[in-house]
Amino acid sequence: MQGNDIEKLIKIIAKLPALGARSARRIVLHLLKKKDASLLPLIDALQNVADNIKKCPICGNFDTEEPCAICADASRDTELVCVVQDVADLWAMERVGLYKGQYHVLGGILSALDGITPEDLNIESLFSRLNQGQIKEVILALPATIDGQITTHYLLSRLKEYPLKVTTLAQGLPLGAELDYMDDGTIQLALSARKEI
Amino acid sequence: MQGNDIEKLIKIIAKLPALGARSARRIVLHLLKKKDASLLPLIDALQNVADNIKKCPICGNFDTEEPCAICADASRDTELVCVVQDVADLWAMERVGLYKGQYHVLGGILSALDGITPEDLNIESLFSRLNQGQIKEVILALPATIDGQITTHYLLSRLKEYPLKVTTLAQGLPLGAELDYMDDGTIQLALSARKEI
Repeated sequence: MQGNDIEKLIKIIAKLPALGARSARRIVLHLLKKKDASLLPLIDALQNVADNIKKCPICGNFDTEEPCAICADASRDTELVCVVQDVADLWAMERVGLYKGQYHVLGGILSALDGITPEDLNIESLFSRLNQGQIKEVILALPATIDGQITTHYLLSRLKEYPLKVTTLAQGLPLGAELDYMDDGTIQLALSARKEI
Repeated sequence: MQGNDIEKLIKIIAKLPALGARSARRIVLHLLKKKDASLLPLIDALQNVADNIKKCPICGNFDTEEPCAICADASRDTELVCVVQDVADLWAMERVGLYKGQYHVLGGILSALDGITPEDLNIESLFSRLNQGQIKEVILALPATIDGQITTHYLLSRLKEYPLKVTTLAQGLPLGAELDYMDDGTIQLALSARKEI
C-alpha cells in the first residue's frame, strides 16, 4: 500500500505535461530513495521559482526580475521586437542565440476551435509598445500552422497602419530533411519559394 | 533568457527518471503558468512526503507510518512473505490487490556486472524475520531476468535450512500474448511448463 501522501504526490506529478501514472511512480520512487540528493533540492528549486518568478509586464516573459533580463538588457536592440506564441518559443529563440532584439509573448494564438479571440491574447500591449514609436521592425515568429497563419494575418492587417518593417520566419525544408519524408504542403511551399543559387 | 532560478529548476527536473531537457522545460512552463493550481500544490505534496515518509524498518516499504501500513495491518496474513526487488514491485503487487500477506523489499538484486553482493541487499533482515518462526511461506517475486534468477537461486539455497514452503511466480505467456511476437525463451518456458486442461 502506498502511503496517502505518496499517492497524492503521484497523482499531482502524473498530471504534469508529458507524464502519466507510470512515469510519475518512477519519479516519486526515485525522489523517495534519493531524499537528500534529489527530493530536497527539487523542493528548494520549486520554492525559489514560486517565490521569485514574475511575468515581465513589458514582454510577458518569466523572470526573477521585473522587467525581465531581456527587456532590461541595454545591449539588445530595442528597435526590433519578435512576436512569439509562448514563453517556450522565446526560450527556443534564445537557445539559438542569434536574435538580439526584444520579444513580445502573445500567450497563445487565435483559434476559432478553442474560442481564442484577440482579447484573450497580449495583443493590445503589443500595440501600446508600438505606439511609443521606438520599434522599427516586428518579426512575427508564430507557429507554421493554420491558427498560426491566421494570427499572423490578423496582426499583419493591424500592423499596416504603422510605419514598420514586418517580417515572418522563412518556411521550407527543415535542416536534414529528406523529401521522401516531408509532407506535401512543405514541399509545395519549398518549391514555390525556391531561390536561385 | 531563462532566469537562473528557472534554469536551475529545469536542470533538476531534467535529471529525474523518464525525463529530459525538453520535457523538463514543458513541465516548468506549465508550473509557471499555473502557479496556484499546479506549482504550489506540487511543492506542498513534495514537502509532505519529505517530512513524513519513512522506510519501514521491517519490510523496507515507504510509508508515513513506522512500521508501514502493510506490516501494521492486522487483517493481513503474517505467515506469508513476498520478497520483491523494489518498492515499485510492491506497489505493482498491491495494485493487483490479490495478495494479502507481508512483503520484504530487497532494495535490488544480485548483479555481477554492477558489483551487487548479498551484503548490499536487505537479505539479513529477511532471515532475521524468518528466525522469529512465524512465517510459513516465502514467495520469491523477483524479476524474470538472469540477475533475478541468480538472486532467486541464492535465496533458495539459504532458505533450504528453514522448514518453509518456498514458491516463485509462474512463468509463461503473458495475458494477450501472440506467439508470433513472443521471444524464443518465453515460448520454450511456456512449452516445457505446459499444463493439462
